[in-house]
Amino acid sequence: MVKIEDIGEHQLLAIIRPYCDQEKIGDDGAILDVSLGKKLVITTDILVENVHFSDSTTPPHSIGYRATTANLSDLAAMGATPIALTIGLSLRKDVEISWIESLYQGIQQCLAKYNIKIVGGDITRSIVNTISITAVGEVSQNKAIYRHTAKVGDVILTTGFHGLAKAGLEILLYPEKYSHIDDETRKKVIFAHQYPQPRLDMIKHLKNLHPYPQITGMDSSDGLADAIIQICQMSNVGATINRQKLPIPLAIKKITDDETALNWLLYGGEDFELVLCMNVKVAQYLQLRLGKNCHIIGEINASSEIQLIDHENVYPKLLLNQRKTFQHF
Amino acid sequence: MVKIEDIGEHQLLAIIRPYCDQEKIGDDGAILDVSLGKKLVITTDILVENVHFSDSTTPPHSIGYRATTANLSDLAAMGATPIALTIGLSLRKDVEISWIESLYQGIQQCLAKYNIKIVGGDITRSIVNTISITAVGEVSQNKAIYRHTAKVGDVILTTGFHGLAKAGLEILLYPEKYSHIDDETRKKVIFAHQYPQPRLDMIKHLKNLHPYPQITGMDSSDGLADAIIQICQMSNVGATINRQKLPIPLAIKKITDDETALNWLLYGGEDFELVLCMNVKVAQYLQLRLGKNCHIIGEINASSEIQLIDHENVYPKLLLNQRKTFQHF
Repeated sequence: MVKIEDIGEHQLLAIIRPYCDQEKIGDDGAILDVSLGKKLVITTDILVENVHFSDSTTPPHSIGYRATTANLSDLAAMGATPIALTIGLSLRKDVEISWIESLYQGIQQCLAKYNIKIVGGDITRSIVNTISITAVGEVSQNKAIYRHTAKVGDVILTTGFHGLAKAGLEILLYPEKYSHIDDETRKKVIFAHQYPQPRLDMIKHLKNLHPYPQITGMDSSDGLADAIIQICQMSNVGATINRQKLPIPLAIKKITDDETALNWLLYGGEDFELVLCMNVKVAQYLQLRLGKNCHIIGEINASSEIQLIDHENVYPKLLLNQRKTFQHF
Repeated sequence: MVKIEDIGEHQLLAIIRPYCDQEKIGDDGAILDVSLGKKLVITTDILVENVHFSDSTTPPHSIGYRATTANLSDLAAMGATPIALTIGLSLRKDVEISWIESLYQGIQQCLAKYNIKIVGGDITRSIVNTISITAVGEVSQNKAIYRHTAKVGDVILTTGFHGLAKAGLEILLYPEKYSHIDDETRKKVIFAHQYPQPRLDMIKHLKNLHPYPQITGMDSSDGLADAIIQICQMSNVGATINRQKLPIPLAIKKITDDETALNWLLYGGEDFELVLCMNVKVAQYLQLRLGKNCHIIGEINASSEIQLIDHENVYPKLLLNQRKTFQHF
């Protein structure tokens, strides 16, 4: 297997170049257009080997795809449409060239859906593989989504399903524990972990709303509970989450018990869905349009707590716990 | 000494927050303005501990300053004016909090001169300290500087002086070898290594040129020779460099012999000056304006070589050597 140390910098750059926008690279920076009247949105995410990914659970193609999704998801969370990406890579010198090619193919596959390209970056050696992506996008001033604007009475709408990525990671980490799980379920949750989708489709729907409503939100990269906690803290509000309305995917029901399922759903992370607060009528309209693809799970209130309540009184009242959310240190 | 592992993520973020633009952070991305009619310029640079910096030669304040300069210099090299920066940090958990504060103070000191701020980023743990900065700037379409547009007959103009940063690094690495060097000289070259300046001042001068001339160029972050080689390769031209016109700073003459001085000057790197190709009349006008702050060192020709020639025939003709330039792997 050919490694970086066998080929040197110039050949390495020659291998990466075809994955980049030929017109934008080769200079000290890339020159891009921002549409007339739009604001620029910029976001940076770092993935470190053995912290955010591991060769044992994530092939390089999927690492590239997920890293790209993480950044595009941040743009979606701001209500923005992506323009371009820069890729900063720090690599061990014993990394195989095929690993790098596969990583870029994963990035490219994710980007291709949105017709955007890699326009620059940096590559250097290190003792640990690290991928640092910066994505730029654009948004109309009045359609930008922030975390601090949630109002009492807003409902909380989530896209898609939470907990699937965590279920996939569990199966990859502990295959023997889950050896009884059927192939279809296994594939579904592993795919959710390895190939999460940024919810830019939702942004398209939001953009078409007239008149444009106030929407507050963020993505659920660090978990559904974390997103709700962050939004409530920054908006100085509380919330109630209706336990019966939290959608537990069938795949997760097949894999684990109710309590673990709830934990994965609230604290699992890396589903890259959107958690949005808005007027109930707007939320209901979106639900009619999107069907199963979004769920109204709770409501913003004037308290200082985030309560998980059960209208059917089967489960006791719980408070969302910040200490259970993903800690980067 | 308090370390990251002692305080955790939330306190760490609280320490970093004061160094950032309060209005831009706290969401999934930062929202920025690009001036009407301007293009966006984006550039990314990664600095890895023990590859690009070391605690033995560079205090954290200077690491922050240099990392910022490296990015702003890339914007200057594109003819762009900076707008904002994002900082991606991967840190060992035993890093002292005072180290991180000092790093941000260095970044802030460099940014303050240009009235720009940190608007976002990411922070995560790793096994090696890594700083990944992305800078965004703006430029008028017709004033963007590329590497591929040098024309036969253009002269090569460099800003400032080359080799000083390398001289500073040498003194820091081998203090005993240079123990005879006077304090003033020592301080001057160590400052050049630890606190290099991005040449955004030059961009201001260029912007005022009417009519705006064709200017080709890049910065000399990887060395003066590297910059000339890159420009010639991308423009499909050659060049002659006049050895007598290469300005050897007095400080370097005091520190080392002629041959080493020439090597530092051509291949030392990290001076973050600009290497620009343009019509001779424009270059002469700039030289009148800037005086000692820029030098016409050679000329672009139609050959495929870059020759270092000596009009006084003291030294033999040399070819610039790509293998001597900084290799990232």
